[in-house]
Amino acid sequence: MNGKKDCVEINIPAATKAKLAPDDSAKSSFQGFSCKAWIWKVWEFCKEDSNRVIFAFKVGLAVLLVSLLILVREPYEIFGTNIIWSILTVAIMFEYTVGATFNRGFNRALGSLLAGILAIAVAQVALHSGRVAEPILIGTSIFLIGAITSFIKLWPSFVPYEYGFRVILFTYCLIIVSGYRMGNPIRTAMDRLYSIAIGGFVAVFVNVLVFPIWAGEQLHKELVNSFNSLADALEECVKKYLEDEGLDHQEFSKTVMDEFPDEPAYRKCRSTLNSSAKLESLANAAKWEPPHGRFQHFFYPWSEYVKVGAVLRYCAYEVMALHGVLHSEIQAPYNLRITFKSEIQDATNQAAELVRSLAKDICNMKRSLKTSLLKRVHSSTERLQRAIDMHSYLLTAHSDPPDNSSKQLPKLSHAPSSTLFDPDQMDDDLDSTNLEKSTNQTESYHEMMRKQSRRLHSWPSREVDAFEEEGVFSTDFLPRMKALESTAALSLANFTSLLIEFVVRLDHLVEAVDELSKMAKFKLEGL
Amino acid sequence: MNGKKDCVEINIPAATKAKLAPDDSAKSSFQGFSCKAWIWKVWEFCKEDSNRVIFAFKVGLAVLLVSLLILVREPYEIFGTNIIWSILTVAIMFEYTVGATFNRGFNRALGSLLAGILAIAVAQVALHSGRVAEPILIGTSIFLIGAITSFIKLWPSFVPYEYGFRVILFTYCLIIVSGYRMGNPIRTAMDRLYSIAIGGFVAVFVNVLVFPIWAGEQLHKELVNSFNSLADALEECVKKYLEDEGLDHQEFSKTVMDEFPDEPAYRKCRSTLNSSAKLESLANAAKWEPPHGRFQHFFYPWSEYVKVGAVLRYCAYEVMALHGVLHSEIQAPYNLRITFKSEIQDATNQAAELVRSLAKDICNMKRSLKTSLLKRVHSSTERLQRAIDMHSYLLTAHSDPPDNSSKQLPKLSHAPSSTLFDPDQMDDDLDSTNLEKSTNQTESYHEMMRKQSRRLHSWPSREVDAFEEEGVFSTDFLPRMKALESTAALSLANFTSLLIEFVVRLDHLVEAVDELSKMAKFKLEGL
Repeated sequence: MNGKKDCVEINIPAATKAKLAPDDSAKSSFQGFSCKAWIWKVWEFCKEDSNRVIFAFKVGLAVLLVSLLILVREPYEIFGTNIIWSILTVAIMFEYTVGATFNRGFNRALGSLLAGILAIAVAQVALHSGRVAEPILIGTSIFLIGAITSFIKLWPSFVPYEYGFRVILFTYCLIIVSGYRMGNPIRTAMDRLYSIAIGGFVAVFVNVLVFPIWAGEQLHKELVNSFNSLADALEECVKKYLEDEGLDHQEFSKTVMDEFPDEPAYRKCRSTLNSSAKLESLANAAKWEPPHGRFQHFFYPWSEYVKVGAVLRYCAYEVMALHGVLHSEIQAPYNLRITFKSEIQDATNQAAELVRSLAKDICNMKRSLKTSLLKRVHSSTERLQRAIDMHSYLLTAHSDPPDNSSKQLPKLSHAPSSTLFDPDQMDDDLDSTNLEKSTNQTESYHEMMRKQSRRLHSWPSREVDAFEEEGVFSTDFLPRMKALESTAALSLANFTSLLIEFVVRLDHLVEAVDELSKMAKFKLEGL
Repeated sequence: MNGKKDCVEINIPAATKAKLAPDDSAKSSFQGFSCKAWIWKVWEFCKEDSNRVIFAFKVGLAVLLVSLLILVREPYEIFGTNIIWSILTVAIMFEYTVGATFNRGFNRALGSLLAGILAIAVAQVALHSGRVAEPILIGTSIFLIGAITSFIKLWPSFVPYEYGFRVILFTYCLIIVSGYRMGNPIRTAMDRLYSIAIGGFVAVFVNVLVFPIWAGEQLHKELVNSFNSLADALEECVKKYLEDEGLDHQEFSKTVMDEFPDEPAYRKCRSTLNSSAKLESLANAAKWEPPHGRFQHFFYPWSEYVKVGAVLRYCAYEVMALHGVLHSEIQAPYNLRITFKSEIQDATNQAAELVRSLAKDICNMKRSLKTSLLKRVHSSTERLQRAIDMHSYLLTAHSDPPDNSSKQLPKLSHAPSSTLFDPDQMDDDLDSTNLEKSTNQTESYHEMMRKQSRRLHSWPSREVDAFEEEGVFSTDFLPRMKALESTAALSLANFTSLLIEFVVRLDHLVEAVDELSKMAKFKLEGL
């Protein structure tokens, strides 16, 4: 929820599974600062993803290499002081993944080139316009370039190339201004382009050849992880719903802002909901990468990953809604929830298995038929539907409108009393019968449940708390919504409906993954 | 869904309400390129937010001002060629909002300062270590600085200061390398700091004094807009649910990827779900801004805006779920949906009004009591609950378990047949009665509905389509989930439950806004 898309989890040894938000970790490190804990933290951070250490050493290597051009006498004598620009280029261009580095390099190269051509052209015109007009012309052109590039980079289609426009702006200014003061703008432009090219070459060279971190690989992993965390979150949510004897209704505003410490899978799933931007930027970077590792063919469908991610997110919204029901203040009684336990559990397990099997297929780049798995998911969901269907009387407080029936069915009241159905009457009959013969009667669980829920949700429903008198209210008072208890049982219907809708959406997820498998030419298996 | 957080909407005159995604707009401009349409597009883009034009002119002005330092002879003679660094600083530091510029300036200033101190210290040590050791020491230090800064900037708490670490890296390299080659590292460091300070000063000066664009103001507007789009989306969704005679079930995977062209409010609401990162970055920037405009006191609680945004997003998840029900393949029949029309409509209108009134209060920075509005929302939701409660028999296919009743209640089968209830039998009775006396019977609407839904959802429920035989399946075949029609009516229960849950969450939204109002010292009104 807090939108820290690049938030990386940190494991603290004291609470093995407690993952702190960045701010918390910063705070805790200040409060109880101990060197050992700190080293442990750093160690965990590195162990979590060894690419971080590799990246750090690669940057060090790249700047060292480019600095050698100046530190060693021979290259310095060839290239001169302008070589300093290559250091700047390396420091600015070096990104985490290969694709992002290529992308940034492209921005820088094209931006510098365009700015160079433009600057040389304008400088030539300015040179021939006379001593007075020259600075005016140059000043005007600087203003215009600044305004135009800044405007264009706000345009939605050009937002990804924002950095390129910055490069155009400052390269243009630097070349034209130093050309004006030092003369020979072409020389300045060429020198700068040379040193930028050297810097860019070193950055790309180190990035690609030394333990390359591919954006495509990251994207692939990220998607697989999203699938798994979705399955985990679903199972966790359903487990909590069915297990908790009394769901504790924590202060909602607390649970909104807090991190649901006892629901790690939910938090992971929630973070995938906020990760759309991350997936997209990885896909953008991956498009720049040459075929590599497992992704051997050209025009690999990286954008298809973003699409699968979108469908996955659509499924995740249902899990969010399920989680909402779990923490809702309107709750079906526990024994009602437990009635459909086996069906709900079964459908959940099958659905989670399907999601995990999709994840596994993507992970292994295999394409296998999900027909039998889908069939199982469907049949278990169907069983759930049928169970709800059969016992739907449990979900409603009474089976007939109590007030209206007599008024609305005047004809029927004249019919023979044997066909007239009055549920309340009947319930009383049932109760008295049961009370008399309770010892020798094998009362079914569902029947027991039914009566219990009827007793619980008696009509008239419990009214909302009376509000304080009009006009006399304190500033701190905010009236609270109270649920009619009689609709509480419908919360179970809500939960199962959402679960069923989740399964329905799984069909589309399977389809999206199949589409991806086809386009990415995953190996067909099991045929 | 597509995660383009900064995606700005573009109005095309031909389709007045069609808002194109960035890619689409780029594509369409290439396909049917016409100069007039293009100018119109740019004009609309500017009109939508005039700050864009202002920003572009400000950048132009800033680079012009800093270039004048070189173009005009006097300052150039004072500062020399190093002044070129100020241009770079302006081009890199100038951000859209005042806060972001301050933040970037802080990063640059602190980064340069730290790098300068470090470089001078290391250079002094290297100078005294002898001719051979000097380049080795410098090279090692460059490698270490590169590795360490790159590692630290990956650490979650330091991610926002990523730019600062880049500055440290390249400033350090530039100073120490040019100090080595040209001697006098202190001089180099000081010159660079001077020119960076001048560039930074110009950038801040222009950004703050010429039509400042405050991040705080933007954040304030963004939050108010989110409230309004939530209210719009809720109303739109409910309206579609109640209005559509036959909800058209478009191919889901299409509707996932498409932009729901007929649901502009939903799309806006969905984009607020993805805007958590935007809110947070605006709040981060706003913290750097001095008191300004309407936000006159120090330590204005900008982070509270992010919190309200999080609670708002929690409400929006319910709207997403409502939208899911609207486009679900399992649908309650239209005439069932229409049964609770007035109650649903009423609850929706009250809820939307409350959200809008919260938006208005924030917009005007007023703090007013929402007691009466909340009361009205609650009572209308209560009416809805009661209506569902009274007519809950409509939501289930039959009022008693048809298969189990005979088995489970063996005692009852011995009871006099007059008290025995068999719903299917009864339904037939009702039907025949009605057929005979349909002309002179004033059948209530609810009763009619009840029978209709019973007929629709007859037991046994419609089975899922038989799957093809095991083993013989084509690759393209993916089985489809079919809903049991009998659970379709529960979809209405689902819809109303979600609506009720939305109202419950509104309480917390009101609370969060109240907390914000207190902390931001909004003017109290109506007391």
